[in-house]
Amino acid sequence: MALVVQKFGGTSVGTTERIGRVAQRVVRTREQGHDVVVVVSAMAGDTNRLVGLAYEIDDEPVGREYDVLLASGEQVSIALLALAIQKLGHKSRSFLGHQVEIMTDSVHGRARIESVGADVLREAFARGEIAVVAGFQGTDKDGNITTLGRGGSDTTAVALAAGLEADVCEIYTDVDGIYTTDPNLVRGAQKIDRISYEEMLELASLGAKVLQTRSVEFGMKYNVPIHVRSSFSDAEGSWVVPEEDTMEQVVVRAVTYDKSEARISLVGVEDRPGVAADVFDILSEANIVVDMIIQNASREQGRTDLTFTVPKANTQEATRLMDVLSAQLGGATVSADTAISKVSVVGVGMRSHSGVASKMFRTLSDASINIQMIATSEIKISVVIDELYTELAVRLLHRAFGLDAA
Amino acid sequence: MALVVQKFGGTSVGTTERIGRVAQRVVRTREQGHDVVVVVSAMAGDTNRLVGLAYEIDDEPVGREYDVLLASGEQVSIALLALAIQKLGHKSRSFLGHQVEIMTDSVHGRARIESVGADVLREAFARGEIAVVAGFQGTDKDGNITTLGRGGSDTTAVALAAGLEADVCEIYTDVDGIYTTDPNLVRGAQKIDRISYEEMLELASLGAKVLQTRSVEFGMKYNVPIHVRSSFSDAEGSWVVPEEDTMEQVVVRAVTYDKSEARISLVGVEDRPGVAADVFDILSEANIVVDMIIQNASREQGRTDLTFTVPKANTQEATRLMDVLSAQLGGATVSADTAISKVSVVGVGMRSHSGVASKMFRTLSDASINIQMIATSEIKISVVIDELYTELAVRLLHRAFGLDAA
Repeated sequence: MALVVQKFGGTSVGTTERIGRVAQRVVRTREQGHDVVVVVSAMAGDTNRLVGLAYEIDDEPVGREYDVLLASGEQVSIALLALAIQKLGHKSRSFLGHQVEIMTDSVHGRARIESVGADVLREAFARGEIAVVAGFQGTDKDGNITTLGRGGSDTTAVALAAGLEADVCEIYTDVDGIYTTDPNLVRGAQKIDRISYEEMLELASLGAKVLQTRSVEFGMKYNVPIHVRSSFSDAEGSWVVPEEDTMEQVVVRAVTYDKSEARISLVGVEDRPGVAADVFDILSEANIVVDMIIQNASREQGRTDLTFTVPKANTQEATRLMDVLSAQLGGATVSADTAISKVSVVGVGMRSHSGVASKMFRTLSDASINIQMIATSEIKISVVIDELYTELAVRLLHRAFGLDAA
Repeated sequence: MALVVQKFGGTSVGTTERIGRVAQRVVRTREQGHDVVVVVSAMAGDTNRLVGLAYEIDDEPVGREYDVLLASGEQVSIALLALAIQKLGHKSRSFLGHQVEIMTDSVHGRARIESVGADVLREAFARGEIAVVAGFQGTDKDGNITTLGRGGSDTTAVALAAGLEADVCEIYTDVDGIYTTDPNLVRGAQKIDRISYEEMLELASLGAKVLQTRSVEFGMKYNVPIHVRSSFSDAEGSWVVPEEDTMEQVVVRAVTYDKSEARISLVGVEDRPGVAADVFDILSEANIVVDMIIQNASREQGRTDLTFTVPKANTQEATRLMDVLSAQLGGATVSADTAISKVSVVGVGMRSHSGVASKMFRTLSDASINIQMIATSEIKISVVIDELYTELAVRLLHRAFGLDAA
């Protein structure tokens, strides 16, 4: 007998018919003798409806009340799922965020889970109940409802699995696992059987939408095995687990790309202390998230070039802010390019294998693809290239690092 | 400066535009210098949508999870109203049932409020906030969400007004007050300026839909002045208040009618102890609510006749149950009549004025309207008559007791 946490997203509970199918799967797990906690998101259309209502009242709804509104979505889906499970002859009980003491900080809209209370769920197991928990929501120490932001239900599920020391946290989704690259782009993309938390963290922060970054961090911190699998089949998916000895034998685990960013360049910036601080202070005050940053010596004496990437949506504002700053930067020239993409290779094997960077750069240069920026971590290399060559670069790298299916 | 509780029903918050209008009214009260608590129901269409979803899963959804589902409706309306009030430049904060400690028993679907916590609302006033509270819902001692049943938001409002010792509980509705009879039926119907709790209780239990019975009981117990008024105008409505000396000067306050019941007769029932108990035990087990009961001596020796009324929807089942019981009742004949109505006159003045009953019966007999059953309380006389004569009887009684407008 195991303790299993299962998480289903908004699409999986988008209609009462689909809720019925989720109930059947949950009951099947229960009938294998396991204790089950199910975490669900709001029904797919519901969140949009609620957001629409709020925007009818305020052009920029935020804060405490917006969280109260959005959290009502999961209240609907947990109640319906509990009813559907009862209809199948099993005991079930729903729990809102505050009812399972999912304690968060007070940052409405993107609260962070600080702790979870496992006792009420253990009592539910003792009564033979299947527990259905609202994802995405928590409560702060003053009893205010908070929400966890995009993909927050993943985090709820993994946090509960951690708190309960569950045997596995199953994330059900519309794909059947995590792939070596986007299968829509590369025919030879392969499902990854096992991947380390660190690799998954890099993939998540590089834009893979399968798991929210924060949920992977939780998994890593508390050693929760996460099983990403399909809502539509019983096939094994991908396991996200602590790093294993054999994992380093694979040099590159996956190739990813991200077209959501733009590049801003400041050419001929005065080379004195505090310049970079000025630039990024101003962007931070405008709530613009900067991803990659590169600073080079300029050809001109006493000058330097500064280049960074921001979300495409912020290009105009970032350019405007830099133009304003330009005089203080010694008359630097500001330019922006939205036709770029970031292509990355990820793998814990890089730590013990040299030559990954040179192989990556060689592969791109052989295809005459120019590299505009480079950023690295211990287990990742990212390059910025012309957006036009994204697909070509991904295919070539996927093959070069031996990831194509035989 | 006063403390005002305002309650708005589902129709008043049925769209975001209407929520905006409610916000304006609330803010106007606040700007007069009063502390305000607003209690709202779910948006008019929302409850039906939620009920519909539940019925897609179960033909007879009940219990804890159904309450969780329905309670999500008020969560939406309080959040939107709080946002709308903030948009008008005022501080506002929403509260769910458990957040203001509306403690109830554990009878899901028709829970009774046992106590309310006033402290969090007083703290909100101290911060200058307009408090927006979810009607219709509470929490039991184990933290389960409960709902109060039909019209429950009235009860929430009056209970909070009682707990806060508010100066007034304003119930906003689509009529402009309580009338001496149905204005759609009698042209001369007049708005009642002041009515006692006891009279209002009788009217509510006789089917007047303006206030839920339980909310009037709360008002009476804690002496909360209730002001029933229109959402669409600033005109004074009707005040429900403790009985005043002048009230007994009016013999009859109002005339009401109710066509929702059917009459069941058992003729020639064996006259022995326990027969009536058998009959009403069986009806009660079938969850059939019996209103009027009359037992007469039969013309036949050792026999009696038993007549009672039940909701029309239960006529068939009640008849069937009585048929089954008939043998045990000494072969009584069972008959049912759905073409009846109950017409009542209500007034605290009856306690000090004699002759009300005879005047009522005489008025009806002068018009050749036959009385089938009679029931009385200290301040009410009800008669059952042929449904056909309902409107005629109401008009004649309204005039006979001097209630027609001059």
